[in-house]
Amino acid sequence: MKLFSTDFLIDLAVQEDLGHGDMTSQAVVDGEATGGAVVFGREAFVLSGTHPFRRVFRAVDPEVEIRAMFRDGDQVPAAEPVFRVTGRLRSLLTAERTALNFLQRLSGIATLTHQMTQAISGTRSRLLDTRKTTPLWRALEKAAVAHGGGRNHRFGLSDGILIKDNHIQAAGGIRQALKRAREAAAHTLKIEIEVETLDQLEEALGAGADIIMLDNFSVAMLKMAVDRVGGRCLLEASGGVSLRTVRAIAETGVDLISCGALTHSARAIDISMEFCSR
Amino acid sequence: MKLFSTDFLIDLAVQEDLGHGDMTSQAVVDGEATGGAVVFGREAFVLSGTHPFRRVFRAVDPEVEIRAMFRDGDQVPAAEPVFRVTGRLRSLLTAERTALNFLQRLSGIATLTHQMTQAISGTRSRLLDTRKTTPLWRALEKAAVAHGGGRNHRFGLSDGILIKDNHIQAAGGIRQALKRAREAAAHTLKIEIEVETLDQLEEALGAGADIIMLDNFSVAMLKMAVDRVGGRCLLEASGGVSLRTVRAIAETGVDLISCGALTHSARAIDISMEFCSR
Amino acid sequence: MKLFSTDFLIDLAVQEDLGHGDMTSQAVVDGEATGGAVVFGREAFVLSGTHPFRRVFRAVDPEVEIRAMFRDGDQVPAAEPVFRVTGRLRSLLTAERTALNFLQRLSGIATLTHQMTQAISGTRSRLLDTRKTTPLWRALEKAAVAHGGGRNHRFGLSDGILIKDNHIQAAGGIRQALKRAREAAAHTLKIEIEVETLDQLEEALGAGADIIMLDNFSVAMLKMAVDRVGGRCLLEASGGVSLRTVRAIAETGVDLISCGALTHSARAIDISMEFCSR
Amino acid sequence: MKLFSTDFLIDLAVQEDLGHGDMTSQAVVDGEATGGAVVFGREAFVLSGTHPFRRVFRAVDPEVEIRAMFRDGDQVPAAEPVFRVTGRLRSLLTAERTALNFLQRLSGIATLTHQMTQAISGTRSRLLDTRKTTPLWRALEKAAVAHGGGRNHRFGLSDGILIKDNHIQAAGGIRQALKRAREAAAHTLKIEIEVETLDQLEEALGAGADIIMLDNFSVAMLKMAVDRVGGRCLLEASGGVSLRTVRAIAETGVDLISCGALTHSARAIDISMEFCSR
Amino acid sequence: MKLFSTDFLIDLAVQEDLGHGDMTSQAVVDGEATGGAVVFGREAFVLSGTHPFRRVFRAVDPEVEIRAMFRDGDQVPAAEPVFRVTGRLRSLLTAERTALNFLQRLSGIATLTHQMTQAISGTRSRLLDTRKTTPLWRALEKAAVAHGGGRNHRFGLSDGILIKDNHIQAAGGIRQALKRAREAAAHTLKIEIEVETLDQLEEALGAGADIIMLDNFSVAMLKMAVDRVGGRCLLEASGGVSLRTVRAIAETGVDLISCGALTHSARAIDISMEFCSR
Amino acid sequence: MKLFSTDFLIDLAVQEDLGHGDMTSQAVVDGEATGGAVVFGREAFVLSGTHPFRRVFRAVDPEVEIRAMFRDGDQVPAAEPVFRVTGRLRSLLTAERTALNFLQRLSGIATLTHQMTQAISGTRSRLLDTRKTTPLWRALEKAAVAHGGGRNHRFGLSDGILIKDNHIQAAGGIRQALKRAREAAAHTLKIEIEVETLDQLEEALGAGADIIMLDNFSVAMLKMAVDRVGGRCLLEASGGVSLRTVRAIAETGVDLISCGALTHSARAIDISMEFCSR
Repeated sequence: MKLFSTDFLIDLAVQEDLGHGDMTSQAVVDGEATGGAVVFGREAFVLSGTHPFRRVFRAVDPEVEIRAMFRDGDQVPAAEPVFRVTGRLRSLLTAERTALNFLQRLSGIATLTHQMTQAISGTRSRLLDTRKTTPLWRALEKAAVAHGGGRNHRFGLSDGILIKDNHIQAAGGIRQALKRAREAAAHTLKIEIEVETLDQLEEALGAGADIIMLDNFSVAMLKMAVDRVGGRCLLEASGGVSLRTVRAIAETGVDLISCGALTHSARAIDISMEFCSR
Repeated sequence: MKLFSTDFLIDLAVQEDLGHGDMTSQAVVDGEATGGAVVFGREAFVLSGTHPFRRVFRAVDPEVEIRAMFRDGDQVPAAEPVFRVTGRLRSLLTAERTALNFLQRLSGIATLTHQMTQAISGTRSRLLDTRKTTPLWRALEKAAVAHGGGRNHRFGLSDGILIKDNHIQAAGGIRQALKRAREAAAHTLKIEIEVETLDQLEEALGAGADIIMLDNFSVAMLKMAVDRVGGRCLLEASGGVSLRTVRAIAETGVDLISCGALTHSARAIDISMEFCSR
Repeated sequence: MKLFSTDFLIDLAVQEDLGHGDMTSQAVVDGEATGGAVVFGREAFVLSGTHPFRRVFRAVDPEVEIRAMFRDGDQVPAAEPVFRVTGRLRSLLTAERTALNFLQRLSGIATLTHQMTQAISGTRSRLLDTRKTTPLWRALEKAAVAHGGGRNHRFGLSDGILIKDNHIQAAGGIRQALKRAREAAAHTLKIEIEVETLDQLEEALGAGADIIMLDNFSVAMLKMAVDRVGGRCLLEASGGVSLRTVRAIAETGVDLISCGALTHSARAIDISMEFCSR
Repeated sequence: MKLFSTDFLIDLAVQEDLGHGDMTSQAVVDGEATGGAVVFGREAFVLSGTHPFRRVFRAVDPEVEIRAMFRDGDQVPAAEPVFRVTGRLRSLLTAERTALNFLQRLSGIATLTHQMTQAISGTRSRLLDTRKTTPLWRALEKAAVAHGGGRNHRFGLSDGILIKDNHIQAAGGIRQALKRAREAAAHTLKIEIEVETLDQLEEALGAGADIIMLDNFSVAMLKMAVDRVGGRCLLEASGGVSLRTVRAIAETGVDLISCGALTHSARAIDISMEFCSR
Repeated sequence: MKLFSTDFLIDLAVQEDLGHGDMTSQAVVDGEATGGAVVFGREAFVLSGTHPFRRVFRAVDPEVEIRAMFRDGDQVPAAEPVFRVTGRLRSLLTAERTALNFLQRLSGIATLTHQMTQAISGTRSRLLDTRKTTPLWRALEKAAVAHGGGRNHRFGLSDGILIKDNHIQAAGGIRQALKRAREAAAHTLKIEIEVETLDQLEEALGAGADIIMLDNFSVAMLKMAVDRVGGRCLLEASGGVSLRTVRAIAETGVDLISCGALTHSARAIDISMEFCSR
Repeated sequence: MKLFSTDFLIDLAVQEDLGHGDMTSQAVVDGEATGGAVVFGREAFVLSGTHPFRRVFRAVDPEVEIRAMFRDGDQVPAAEPVFRVTGRLRSLLTAERTALNFLQRLSGIATLTHQMTQAISGTRSRLLDTRKTTPLWRALEKAAVAHGGGRNHRFGLSDGILIKDNHIQAAGGIRQALKRAREAAAHTLKIEIEVETLDQLEEALGAGADIIMLDNFSVAMLKMAVDRVGGRCLLEASGGVSLRTVRAIAETGVDLISCGALTHSARAIDISMEFCSR
């Protein structure tokens, strides 16, 4: 179902690669031949992407059988089989690349997220994703962040209010921007605003912001911000967040740390599909 | 036009972020307010993605005007304006993130490709992409490779014959696989086959392969392969190709070098959109 | 643009009526004949639906010219022209019914909403819509509520947390439900919960609900609820809201009053399109 | 199947409400929890909408089981269970609102139609719907009219010829309009024309109309029209048809009575879904 | 507009041929080069298909200019220019084949229809098409029949009643089938029934058929049928209709002659596009 | 699956005919009645189209059962049952015409192709199709050519390089066109060029064409071309190919013979569906 949802897009992705047919497999592989294959990582990783992996095979051939040894969010050791796939050889060969393209990318995101959440464990900070996702794959990439132990920021422009510097400038100041937002926005949404200095922070706090994003604050300034706010609103650190910096940021006591690199810079996991005689 | 083509997908990507509306801009920014913004990189890069960049704005608001200072494939210095965008402020704010998501990713691919083609300049090798692309964005990513000076391998499964180890195994050997391919494939397609040893190379050559992919050959073995073949077919090196290794690979004399990292591991370029008073 | 958005649906609605062609107009009306028509209500009303009205004509024939004398949200006196439409007669006749079907229904919603917001003017309550909208037309109907002076509750299931009795039961109580919601939900969303008694109200308040929906409370009980809460959270009255009851409900001091009838029971306005010689 | 048919639209309607996910149920309800619910009306009604009701649940979760105690067209007593629904609690909660939105509206149409057909029972008149339907739901609403005992007028512009006053004016008179229609229209379609006076009726009859629509005729004039025509063509009464007036209209002896209110003004039935412990 | 209408399908047809790009033109023709071409038939023909012809070019490149020297339905002498096309050479080359595929096929239908309507000129018979059309191109092919001077039978299953032998058998006889049809069908549709003998003809006439299709009647039998019916209903001859037989059939005095070959067997016209220096 | 693939289009074709319902079957045939039917040709033919035949029935009613006595590519004697279809009578009647429209056309193509491949049996030539296919049905028609024993030329513009006279003119000559093609085209594609004279043939051969299409060469000239080339590249004869001429063309020794008539001029096979009592 859900025609214009993720499943629709996954099906389109299969067609993107398939075109009018897999010329090689049709030419070289007997249409009736069946076989099996095993999917495994060449490194340890946190799994994400089992749904698109399955869906790709199903789109190619609903009779392919897929057995999963792990679930999304599991930590998978290197060389450990993640899926066993059996069915028509032609179908396995046709689906392989697109299925792996999803799995490698999404597991890369989950794995990086896991590393960063491990790095801040014991602190009160939560790790958040951003809207810097691959166009059309936001739902899958946000799920991958969750599989890695991170939390999701708003999905898109319609389910959260986040007032950035350009909004502030357009509204004529922090106070005016927050006033307009409170008046016009749905009562169900909290109002978040981005600030760049401690003075702006004070102003936003005074004007009743529910959440304040501290944009590119140094660790020292983050600490000062946390002290001044004293829990009166949520504080989100943003900018310059990496595996190297995230612990220090978390130790300032901010509530939230958002990191675009989780989705735009995660390295793909090296995952292979190996055919076995049967 | 082209409903289920790249433009259709770009329009869907706008909707993915937009949902039922940009709550923040609608609440905070006056509907009639107009303004301008400048797009520039925080580092030098090779530009790719001007089409999706434009299309995103047009999808949000056809009246936004976009002036491009560079063309796809151009080398853009850091901090140099790439686009000047003017129109309704709300529209600029709504389109910004999705437009940049395309631009950063595609320019990243073009830039990495450019670095690698520079690295092999003066050799006879051509740099190729692979099918390890982001699902649904293959056309854009292959264009980005071309903008960076690389060449495109087959687009997908239907416009090229590439016999891999699993096909060989299924067919019962290199000779049989090539025979089947020649019989069944369109006469317009060359036949490429992947080999893992020099013996297989000899067999493939003897059986009339048009192109032979040398999978994970060391530089020494690549050199031997080039010598043995002596120009009787095209040779493609594949596996372990990176900025660090590509020059040595090219100097073996192979015709083609394919590199999945161009599309699955290019680092996004840090590109910003800055609003200016008007 | 926005293929699977409201505009896409409006275009589909034109096709629904048109089928393979307007047999009557093609048979009876000369293809070159042009003319004009005026659209007006047979009663006073608040206008909503100018966008789908225009879009229907444009879908049928982009050369039809439409001049609007009013804007969405305006109060239109009976018999006053709202639009003047000129173009090919066949196009006007083909588009007429579908265009009016939108206009009548949406203006009906705006008009009823206007009557109810007038009824509560001077109180602190805001009037809200619900999710009891016509399938596929939620965006247009919520806009119509806004044109009538009402406010929009969450758009759908993904941009708000509203814990109803069945959720409470499934979670094992109000406290548990609120705890789970706070833990799992995006930090950008406020948490609303529905209660049916004053005891539940106390429990929800104690457990930190941001908004409490008072379901089917009598006016007397609403008053007591407002007193007890004393502004510590937002209170929303729901159930039994009509033109007759809404003033008394508002005078209890609740912050919000939600009313499904705005969208599922608004009477269509009687609007006609009259052709004039030209 | 039928991608751009009613089922496609019902699936889209599910997505309209669902967005990127049911935040409340995901946060508050355990993913494995199952349960049951009963659907019933708070008043007696004629059932319509079992197909979209089922389809909504299936779109959300194909494993939800639905048992129907009644069929479309049945008269359902108040408080009598219409459906029993069992499955994952989250799925039931997610689908509930959209499923009921269909059921309430369509049963409202069937119920009003039933009341009006009861009111004219024993006469020779048949009750007809019109094209004043909710955009995109014409097929479902026309089915609801049939479930209530009414008959369907033409589906849309392509499967019937109905010459209205504007067509007559454009053609230069009744005689010319009918002549053109007979010449140009498919031989499979009857030709219907709308008249506003008895003189026009005579002219239309003389010019060979198959069906004549009497627009806004008083009951007395309808009687005169029936007498004059004496069965030489079908007569359809239109305008001012309501539960209060329909009997008198039917007793004039007209063959057909069309009523836009069946679809644009039927009151939604109050139908609830109640969860039960299991 | 009309996303899932003929225009949508024409756009898809362009994509079918185009795939991920016109490799030849991109490789060989300069992107900025412009030129002109002339379209003409190598034989005389009746033109149909100007709309899809234009649409194909517009889908490829909206800046291509097309000047038409003839209109649909015109008789075009051999070698006479039908269109002059100017624009980017690449665009002309890319669009050529798909545009001609439409034009040749549709003009073939119009030409054959014209020959057959000429053959029966002076008789009272009208020539009709059938539902034996190319899947998805019914609207264009029925328009081509009209361009050739023929008339359109019902568009599809929903806008006409045509009771065939299998329906009669299922209903239990001609009388029962006609009774059911009159009771259940919309009052706007005439009822047509197919008969195979003169006895069946009598029965159908007696049971009030509006139109009777005489299936595979010999010319002698057709004549007898016309005599017996004496104008009491429309008679349609069907089966064995060709350029050779149609005149004799028409001279029997039947009202209608339907011919599947118009759409399933028309020979494509040989139409070329010739590039000219500019 | 494959939403915008052939199956999607077949489903759309069902809707094209079905509109808002099969009025005749709904009116005349009992909804519960079941039955069977047999499909057979009134002449011998080579079968193609079993997939769309099945898919049409499945789209109408997934419970219809279809048993096939033959497979695509089989030679079917006249009057021999090809399919036995059982299920709801209404469904069989609704699907019949569209299912047969596919079967007749595709089997016509397969049959003509078979006749032509028989005509050249024993020669070294292979028979090829072209891009002169019915818009949107290229995949099915190319499959039909294969079922008839023919071979497929490139699918469309993106999976083959074919330089025609206009490309040559645009590039400034054969040599330049081939040079550009070799530089720009994917290394996986062979390069084919069309020539009209023996001089051009020499030039193309000298410039390294992989395949040379001999356009409208007489048999004598074809023979000379074959002699001159002596196997140094593939030769394809094109133009004036028919059942009458194909043998002589093949005997010249050309490698390939392409024939547009296979798809644009194949006569539909006369195939019927006959209902049987059950």
